[in-house]
Amino acid sequence: MTENCLFCGIVTGTIPSEQIAETERAIAFMDINPATRGHLLVVTREHATDLRDSAPEDLIAATLLAQSLVGRVIERLGADGANLLSCIGPDAWQSVFHTHLHVIPRYKDDPLVLPWHPKPGDAEDIAATAVELR
Amino acid sequence: MTENCLFCGIVTGTIPSEQIAETERAIAFMDINPATRGHLLVVTREHATDLRDSAPEDLIAATLLAQSLVGRVIERLGADGANLLSCIGPDAWQSVFHTHLHVIPRYKDDPLVLPWHPKPGDAEDIAATAVELR
Ligand SMILES: [Zn+2]
Ligand SMILES: [Zn+2]
Repeated sequence: MTENCLFCGIVTGTIPSEQIAETERAIAFMDINPATRGHLLVVTREHATDLRDSAPEDLIAATLLAQSLVGRVIERLGADGANLLSCIGPDAWQSVFHTHLHVIPRYKDDPLVLPWHPKPGDAEDIAATAVELR
Repeated sequence: MTENCLFCGIVTGTIPSEQIAETERAIAFMDINPATRGHLLVVTREHATDLRDSAPEDLIAATLLAQSLVGRVIERLGADGANLLSCIGPDAWQSVFHTHLHVIPRYKDDPLVLPWHPKPGDAEDIAATAVELR
């Protein structure tokens, strides 16, 4: 736990999130600035600046949770595919400095380009999608 | 091993590659269409269409190898960061249907956007970069 870390706050629950799944070492919740419908973040419970600094068991936990969620967005949301993305360093589009993996559902002919320009999604839409994913 | 799979051919050595590292379950080699200097692919030795179909131990092996290579491109090539990317399905930019992770070195103010438009890199430049990374 590191003070002033947004994702540490979400892990401990002091900052609210639409949580989707959790394991001993990782949790998944909705991105509030979704690149596409159903965009999820998988974070290690343990704080580390980026995945270089995460212990193998934490990175493994995040990866396996992300793997299961890739399947889930395709089955539950009708996504046609997904991207798994991690950003290491500000020059690689990282903006929260706590190890995380993006699970970005993809839809045929969606217009996604990366970097996307984060803007808040509709909170009700995100909450409704979260219900489908839990 | 699946016939006509490019990455199975690279794993078995019937198709040449600039290999960088290998473990029991994963290998890493230079992307011949690099998005940035030092772009690497980490593939599972075992064939699977995408990471949904990979056994956990294969995905874990690929992820841990990618983690170590993220550190290496930053240390050896002077990259300022990196992206880890996996594409699941043609609608998510997947073009070779064998589980792989991209390790894309990032450089301050590089112009990368995804999807990048793959075009062959200079073979000599790629070989020289491979020497730095081995
Ligand atoms: Zn944190
Ligand atoms: Zn294959």
